[in-house]
Amino acid sequence: MSDIIEQESTDSLKSSTPEKESLLSSINSPEDLRKLPEEKLPELCKEIREFLISNLSKNPGHFGSSMGAVDIIVALHYVYNTPRDRVVWDVGHQAYAHKLLTGRRNDFHNLRKYNGLSGFPIPSESEYDTFVCGHAGNSISAALGMAIADMNTPGEDDRKTVAVIGDASIGNGLAFEGLNNAANNPNNLLIILNDNDMSIDDNVGALHRYLSDLTTSSRYNRVRMKLYNKFKKNGWIGDKGKGLVLRFNNSLKALISKQQNIFEGLNIRYFGPFDGNDVRKVVKVLSEIKDMQGPRILHLSTKKGKGFSSAEENPHAWHAPGKFNPSTGEKISQKGNLAWQEVFGKTLVELAEKNEAICGITAAMPSGTSMSIMQEAFPKRTFDVGISEGHAVTFAGGLAAAGKKPFVAIYSSFLQRAYDNIIHDVAIQGLPVVFCIDRAGIVGEDGVTHHGLFDISYLRTIPNISVASPMDAPTLRNLMKTAENTNSPFAIRYPRGKSESNSLDTEPAEIPIGKGRKMYSSTAPGARTAILSLGPVGHEALEAAKRLEKDGYAVDVYDMIWVKPLDMEILTRVAKEYDLVVTVEDGVRNGGFGSAVLEAFSSLKCHIPLLRLGAPDAWVSHGSVAELRADCGFDADGIIKVILNELSSLSAK
Amino acid sequence: MSDIIEQESTDSLKSSTPEKESLLSSINSPEDLRKLPEEKLPELCKEIREFLISNLSKNPGHFGSSMGAVDIIVALHYVYNTPRDRVVWDVGHQAYAHKLLTGRRNDFHNLRKYNGLSGFPIPSESEYDTFVCGHAGNSISAALGMAIADMNTPGEDDRKTVAVIGDASIGNGLAFEGLNNAANNPNNLLIILNDNDMSIDDNVGALHRYLSDLTTSSRYNRVRMKLYNKFKKNGWIGDKGKGLVLRFNNSLKALISKQQNIFEGLNIRYFGPFDGNDVRKVVKVLSEIKDMQGPRILHLSTKKGKGFSSAEENPHAWHAPGKFNPSTGEKISQKGNLAWQEVFGKTLVELAEKNEAICGITAAMPSGTSMSIMQEAFPKRTFDVGISEGHAVTFAGGLAAAGKKPFVAIYSSFLQRAYDNIIHDVAIQGLPVVFCIDRAGIVGEDGVTHHGLFDISYLRTIPNISVASPMDAPTLRNLMKTAENTNSPFAIRYPRGKSESNSLDTEPAEIPIGKGRKMYSSTAPGARTAILSLGPVGHEALEAAKRLEKDGYAVDVYDMIWVKPLDMEILTRVAKEYDLVVTVEDGVRNGGFGSAVLEAFSSLKCHIPLLRLGAPDAWVSHGSVAELRADCGFDADGIIKVILNELSSLSAK
Repeated sequence: MSDIIEQESTDSLKSSTPEKESLLSSINSPEDLRKLPEEKLPELCKEIREFLISNLSKNPGHFGSSMGAVDIIVALHYVYNTPRDRVVWDVGHQAYAHKLLTGRRNDFHNLRKYNGLSGFPIPSESEYDTFVCGHAGNSISAALGMAIADMNTPGEDDRKTVAVIGDASIGNGLAFEGLNNAANNPNNLLIILNDNDMSIDDNVGALHRYLSDLTTSSRYNRVRMKLYNKFKKNGWIGDKGKGLVLRFNNSLKALISKQQNIFEGLNIRYFGPFDGNDVRKVVKVLSEIKDMQGPRILHLSTKKGKGFSSAEENPHAWHAPGKFNPSTGEKISQKGNLAWQEVFGKTLVELAEKNEAICGITAAMPSGTSMSIMQEAFPKRTFDVGISEGHAVTFAGGLAAAGKKPFVAIYSSFLQRAYDNIIHDVAIQGLPVVFCIDRAGIVGEDGVTHHGLFDISYLRTIPNISVASPMDAPTLRNLMKTAENTNSPFAIRYPRGKSESNSLDTEPAEIPIGKGRKMYSSTAPGARTAILSLGPVGHEALEAAKRLEKDGYAVDVYDMIWVKPLDMEILTRVAKEYDLVVTVEDGVRNGGFGSAVLEAFSSLKCHIPLLRLGAPDAWVSHGSVAELRADCGFDADGIIKVILNELSSLSAK
Repeated sequence: MSDIIEQESTDSLKSSTPEKESLLSSINSPEDLRKLPEEKLPELCKEIREFLISNLSKNPGHFGSSMGAVDIIVALHYVYNTPRDRVVWDVGHQAYAHKLLTGRRNDFHNLRKYNGLSGFPIPSESEYDTFVCGHAGNSISAALGMAIADMNTPGEDDRKTVAVIGDASIGNGLAFEGLNNAANNPNNLLIILNDNDMSIDDNVGALHRYLSDLTTSSRYNRVRMKLYNKFKKNGWIGDKGKGLVLRFNNSLKALISKQQNIFEGLNIRYFGPFDGNDVRKVVKVLSEIKDMQGPRILHLSTKKGKGFSSAEENPHAWHAPGKFNPSTGEKISQKGNLAWQEVFGKTLVELAEKNEAICGITAAMPSGTSMSIMQEAFPKRTFDVGISEGHAVTFAGGLAAAGKKPFVAIYSSFLQRAYDNIIHDVAIQGLPVVFCIDRAGIVGEDGVTHHGLFDISYLRTIPNISVASPMDAPTLRNLMKTAENTNSPFAIRYPRGKSESNSLDTEPAEIPIGKGRKMYSSTAPGARTAILSLGPVGHEALEAAKRLEKDGYAVDVYDMIWVKPLDMEILTRVAKEYDLVVTVEDGVRNGGFGSAVLEAFSSLKCHIPLLRLGAPDAWVSHGSVAELRADCGFDADGIIKVILNELSSLSAK
């Protein structure tokens, strides 16, 4: 897990963030902010950016979007009465400035660290964090719920709710469902579209192109807004008369551009686009539309990385840049083995070179998944569908139904959004879609919303699907080759971070489905323990076995590779030859791999003591993978401890 | 399960569907259809409608939408070269006419019956069925996959793909993701919007209102289409020039109506609306736009129940009317106990009367779930969000975050679409949303896409959620009361059909979380068996225990009520007192309730033989619930068989 961000000593970071006499240092809550005169706001934004540059250069995080959103965040807390008024973030890693303004500045150096601040707003951390926001597109639906709840609660109906959503997130199906419903119930929700013209990778989809068109024809909207304000001011129209002005302007627009206002089509008032990096402008517009009735959308254009020239020039690379030199913008690179993602991406291209049916699909994560390697080699056979995980899977089903061999690479926790698509659009039909489940298991610093802990349990219950996890890079390559040759749904899960390998020298070869392998045979005497591991946590198992052997305990390790089908030959042998069995998996214990082994033992009428190690029935927080594995008790230490405990209780009998 | 459609003798049905000399009887495949002169098509449509009325009045199915779609289906098979050209249905229960035209007319009397035709198009049944289509909104994504696959396959690039989607389905997030991507890749997909102005219940959402507006202003679109065709014919414009005409017409439209064309906004060409019940008109339009390049949407207006006056007048009631008199339109009503849904709906109102925080949410199924009862009593506290299951759950999360107590009623198989929303938007935050999981377990005639078999396994792995299932109506009421008083996520699963109860006399009372109950104590001597059941299948367990007792076997029955948390007190006792344990559940065996019991026994170091009964690791087809339970081996007969087998093998040892 060498790509996991290393921990920095707290002291060194603290000392390097000097709190000289500044505006920011005087703000311990939005109340303080609201006491500032408006003309001081640009200076405050500048200070916040300096603070972010100084901190994030040492303790890496999501840089580009956070820099871009500073002005919107300052303006929101300035105009709205937070926390009574609610701001709901969408993909909240943009909201670092929000953390700084809401009493968490002094803890910011521990962002994303074990026991430190979460990388996302999260209600358990602050009353200013209104909703969980790790997965894109949920803000409109959640905020609509709050807005309607307040409207229908005596004494609360003056509370305001604002959803802040990015231009990539708004293309997500959930966001659309939210929009479609926002126009349907009485509510005063304000939706701010923070349009920085990209998601983590290039933005895709018709809606995005549409937003670009909208931005380029912004003068029409500006004219319209001015007219509207003038009319309103003079009492010529009430709020309801707005449609007239809109219609007039739309007819002008339609004559000159080909633009149709989708939001107005959905009966949501549209304002913008305005410069979202001009904090005073944003304050002005927010003040103007704050008290309007009905659902509204405010389109603000921002620049990713705003205020740091390297990031402004190359926003892709600066989404989450790791450590960097704050003066030069030079990134501090990390060396190490091949990442699992690189193994995946390069192997896919190798397979695709020989098989024209192969195509690749990613949902807005070409670089994160390394699908970008396939994209570069075979642009016509690679599809980035945007933040549309459900569509990604159903689309893959369609490709497969027409004879293609799609490899769909999606992060485990995001694939939860496509659960029904996996069942209904792929597995029932037995279509040969390959699910390459990235970020499976504990992901580390991104924390509770991003861990991929459920996929084993939610996939293995689906009939007609193979589910496997490689312990090493050659096995990932072999599984991909095997998937290529398998004419039914196939899932391969692998984690974030580096594999143990540094080369791709072995040729990918088909391996038998449902066959595990013995990784380690202990020569120690006495009561025998078998560890059955799945995936890269096998390395923890190996270490545990070796250390236990030194202390005289006989522990063998089996890399089971397959959750479904299980290797019944190994299990039958293990059932006969061992006194204790321990399963180790990087996923929830309930219903997971260990549970599948338990079911198999039950059907074999085998009653050896079985201990299942994995994530507990509780939410796993953020920190390094090593810290979190230790917490969950399935690192080498944890495995050793559990085995020694059990052996001593067995021998006591 | 008395509400399950009774089986009709095959003979009586066959004889009542006389195949006199008719157009329909001469058509055994679309090839035959394409030989008919165009002027015969209206007559054929009429015959198909007569056939449907005659058949569906005796063997119930989805009547209204199927009657409405007849002309579109005939026109599609007439104009397109099916099966080489592909038609992808969305919610395919509208596609009965498609079954009749594609060689399945003689099997139609067995529609939805055990071993009979599926109620939906399904690829395993016919080469004309291109994709599974039980869950709404998947057609655009799937068809886009096919269209792009064909375009990139040498020799296949002339194949055409058509997606047929309803006006309710198109408001679904997946459909939007499909649309958003359809405009983004080169493809020639035709999307037919079959607009019958309603889903099963009243259609909701801004998009729907938008479609209505579009229909009322159809003359502009007609003018535009005429202009375009004229210009094209005279060679004044090529396909690319179309934008000009569009723009001109849009400007006209925008001046006069407030309409914005959302589809054109997304860069998908829009044609319509046209009368979709005028088969010759549809043939003409399809012929005109068939060979155009690029993604297109054709908006056709149809009437649900078209051709049967009672159904035209009251489309809601005729969505799936059950048996009826084909001459008078009188429905043949079924009597029996209270449906689970009625118990749910009436109890919710009782609770809501005393607790203002309670609100109800349904995703386009107010009558199916009986949320309609709440809707009538508390219209402002009830939200039908349309076919937007993800939004339903996240919206509920927002309501809960603002102090409300939402009860979300969604069918189990549809709730799969909201899996990530349950995890990310509710459970991580521990929000007190109550999931009322309707149609849990085997649903019967709707078959493979509609069984709710996965919810136990996919919910019980989520931390911080309670999961329960009532065996009887009073327990459902008690669970709802308990959920009301529980400040964390809570899931209650119950099946389709009638409960055992006929009254709601007992007052809903809070019950202890995680406490089951002993339902039956056998007085027979000898080796002791405990059946642990979950939910209404407990009645099968009771019957099995009673019949086994008569034969001298001692079998006790425990209604466990809770999957999570399990009743560890009962389990500890059972582990000590019995020789054999059998779990029975209406869900997948893998990872389900029995698996949870196995995990608990493992942690208790209890090694009694445990048999887990439930749905196998294979797809369950359609038929009556009784037939399918028998197939899966968890009806009373199956339970008895398994216990006798096991006892004899135990005594042989």
